[in-house]
Formats: sequence, structure tokens, C-alpha cells
Amino acid sequence: MAPEPKAIRDIEGLLIDVGGVLYQGSDAIEGSAEALARLRGAGIPFRLLTNTTRTTRAALAEKLRGFGFTVQEEEIITPASTAKAVLARDGALPHLLVHPCLLPDCPAEAASPNAVLIGDAGEHFTFGNMNRAFNVLIGGGRLYALGKNRFFRGEHGFELDAGPFVAALEYAAGVEAVLIGKPSRDFFLTAAKDAGLAPERVAMVGDDVESDVEGAIDAGLSAVLVRTGKFREEDEARARKSGARVAASLASFVSDLT
Amino acid sequence: MAPEPKAIRDIEGLLIDVGGVLYQGSDAIEGSAEALARLRGAGIPFRLLTNTTRTTRAALAEKLRGFGFTVQEEEIITPASTAKAVLARDGALPHLLVHPCLLPDCPAEAASPNAVLIGDAGEHFTFGNMNRAFNVLIGGGRLYALGKNRFFRGEHGFELDAGPFVAALEYAAGVEAVLIGKPSRDFFLTAAKDAGLAPERVAMVGDDVESDVEGAIDAGLSAVLVRTGKFREEDEARARKSGARVAASLASFVSDLT
Repeated sequence: MAPEPKAIRDIEGLLIDVGGVLYQGSDAIEGSAEALARLRGAGIPFRLLTNTTRTTRAALAEKLRGFGFTVQEEEIITPASTAKAVLARDGALPHLLVHPCLLPDCPAEAASPNAVLIGDAGEHFTFGNMNRAFNVLIGGGRLYALGKNRFFRGEHGFELDAGPFVAALEYAAGVEAVLIGKPSRDFFLTAAKDAGLAPERVAMVGDDVESDVEGAIDAGLSAVLVRTGKFREEDEARARKSGARVAASLASFVSDLT
Repeated sequence: MAPEPKAIRDIEGLLIDVGGVLYQGSDAIEGSAEALARLRGAGIPFRLLTNTTRTTRAALAEKLRGFGFTVQEEEIITPASTAKAVLARDGALPHLLVHPCLLPDCPAEAASPNAVLIGDAGEHFTFGNMNRAFNVLIGGGRLYALGKNRFFRGEHGFELDAGPFVAALEYAAGVEAVLIGKPSRDFFLTAAKDAGLAPERVAMVGDDVESDVEGAIDAGLSAVLVRTGKFREEDEARARKSGARVAASLASFVSDLT
């Protein structure tokens, strides 16, 4: 039997996924800007927690403001913004296989790399770039992944996220990536702490049943799967099985919460 | 304790890998052309068994003749030459993600595909092509892989083979590929049968400890790892552990055999 979701009165703050929850393609998802404003008005702390690693925090804040959201750069937590600390801790000097747009948030490319840092590089996942990363790994380099999401819904249908290319390099070099973004337990705990709340008081709201929902629950948070973005009907049973709620949208859930 | 390799007098025929065993880059490996001639002179049957799926059997035969080998197209067995029968058996209509050079040996691209056939497409592993294949799989399509080799030694160092990209699509769509080439058991057995020999009388000679050596032994053949091509020192212990022989080169092994 699936565990019961935590009572809604016990949820004191939210971590909110961005792509597929706040916006889709080039539009805000209906009601989501008002939902953030409502959280703010009710004094419910939140952070935006995203693995969509093609934009810096500053650019993402700017983009969201363009969609009508009121949001500060400091409210956004990304794997890249976390990567510098993680790599410095490990003495890792990275070769970067990330989207060029993300470079300002990333550690610098090392002259003599002993590691690879991979994100969803999109069209920059060329055969040549994959080979360059592979040659660092086969020389003994460690693999760090900003995320391991499988796919997302882009403007032209489903597109591969970083995960499949992480899996490709893991398979090629016989290594396992150190995951920095969702669903890494540390990433959820860091974000909850940044919001000033104990993990068990926080719910993660996302459209990815594996990375957002199961990841958050494994880390001791609550989770809400929304029926927007890349949601597919078959995700619902899986989310409920893990003890998550399912809501029509962020707006719908926030309206229940406040 | 590692199993003993089969006595050399019990080996009546060979399956021989091509890249890294017969030639490397743009040159024949020393002594390999003479080794094939010696096998022929001694009446020892052999087939060339390759996963290097960037060339048709006809083009590969022509290329090998250019390196000084005497070889007929019919002596070469490739995953593509086997794929047509396998896909027809399953009623699979493929979308092709293979190297364009290989197209003449492949089943035709289907107008409404219900499957993906993937080979080592090299620089044609673009983000767009990977996404197109992924969209067939997420729609319920079956994944067929000509090979799942990890990497090979190209003219510019180590390059990714089909395997990592197969792993990427498997991870993305949550499916497992049907493997057509090495190390598929059926592929070794078909090749031994084609050479007119029982599997236990045949040795596979290759430079890939996983795909050639362990694959052949799992299928009930003997195996010989050669120290040419992509051979790395650490491969030797792994090969011996599986009960394989290790030889300096094809020429060296054939000289012991004849």
C-alpha cells in the first residue's frame, strides 16, 4: 500500500521546479506567476530548484521576470551554482561539457583536467565533444553530472536531457558519475536549509516523477507531482506509490495550501 | 582459479575481428595478411567477424584487399548483414541511426517506424539524430543495436563506439536494446555455423576483452586476446581469468596454430 502523503498543514515551505512547472516553451504556465505571489503574500518560504542547466541563475531570473514572475536570482538554486563548492572540496579540475550559456556559473575549464563536469549541453553533445570528455575519463578522470534527468519537453517535442549522455560516458569509461543536481539527496537538503526549513517541513513541486518526486521523498521531503510540463498519465500511479500528492498545476496546489 | 584455455590442437577454425586485429588506422597490422594466407594454405576455415559497422561488407572487403589481404565479401560477417533477418523475424520497421556508409547493407528506413536500429554512427550521433531516435522509442518502439562496444582506437586516439549511445537511449527511454552483433551469443553461433564448425572447435581472435573474448567464451567458443589495436595491459588479466589465451598478434597466434 502506498504511504499517505503528509498532511497539508505540515508543509511550511516549497521547493519548486522551473521548466514544466513555472513555464513551458515560451509561456508561463497559467496561474503560476500568481501562485508565487500568493506564497510570498502568505509568508510561505520557497526556493526555485532546477536541473535545467542551460542558463545561469541571473539569466533564468531575467527570463522568469519576462514571463511575469517576481523572482530574485538568490531564490534560484541550480546544480552549476552548487558545482564550484563540490569540485573544490574534491580537488577536481574539470573539463566542461556544458551548455555555453551556463559557463558564467560554472567552475573554470582546467588546462590539465582530472575530471569532467557534464550538464545538458543540448546540440553541443557532438561526437567530437563526447570523445574529448571520454578521453579525460579513460585517463582516470572523475565524472561529475549537474543532473541525470532523462528528457524534457522542449519547443519541438521531447528532447534528451543530460542523463542519457551521462549514462553514455559512464558506460564508455566504466565509471559512475557523482551527481550534483536533482535527485541528489544533498541538493534537496541544501535547498531546504537555504529556505530556512527542516526537510520534513518542505514539499518539492515538480513535473519529473523520478528526479523531482522520488528524489525529494528519498531525501525526507514531501513531494507534489504536477500535471503540467512533461507529465504523462503513467507517472501518476508511480508518484502516488511513493507517497506523493498529485495536483493539476502549481496554482492548484498553492490554492489548497494557502 | 582461471579455467585452462582449450588445447591448441582442438581448435579447428577461427573467427577473426577486423579493426585492431587485421589493420589499425590506415595500415595492415604486421604479419596479419600473411597469417590469413597461412590459414588458407593450411585449410583452416575462418570468418571475419566485426562490429565496426561503418562500412558495408563489400567496402570492407575492398578496403582489406587494398591493405594486401586476400579476402572475399562472403567471408565477412557483420551485424548489418544479420540485422535484416532479425528485424524481419520480429516484424520490426526501423528508424535508422547508423553511419550513412552502412545503408546499403541495412534494412530500409521505414515510413512509420516501430523500432530503432542503431550502429556506430560516429559524427552522425548529433543531438538532433539522438532526439529523433528517442521519440520513436518513447512512442513504444523497440531498440536494436548492431553492437554495444564501448570504444575503439581511431586515427585520432580513442573514439566512442555504438555502445555508449545505445546506453544513452536505453537510459532515456527505460528500455533494453536487442543486441545483434558481438557479444550476442547468436552472432557467434551463426558465424561458427557459417564456417562449418561446432562452436567448441572455434576460437575467436580479437582485441576487445569484453565483446570479443568474454562474448565468445560465454557462447561456448575459445578466445584469443591479441596485444594489438585497443589492447591495454589491464585487459590481459581479465582475459586470462575468463579462460582465454593472450597472443602478441594474429600472426603470432596463427604461427602457433599451423
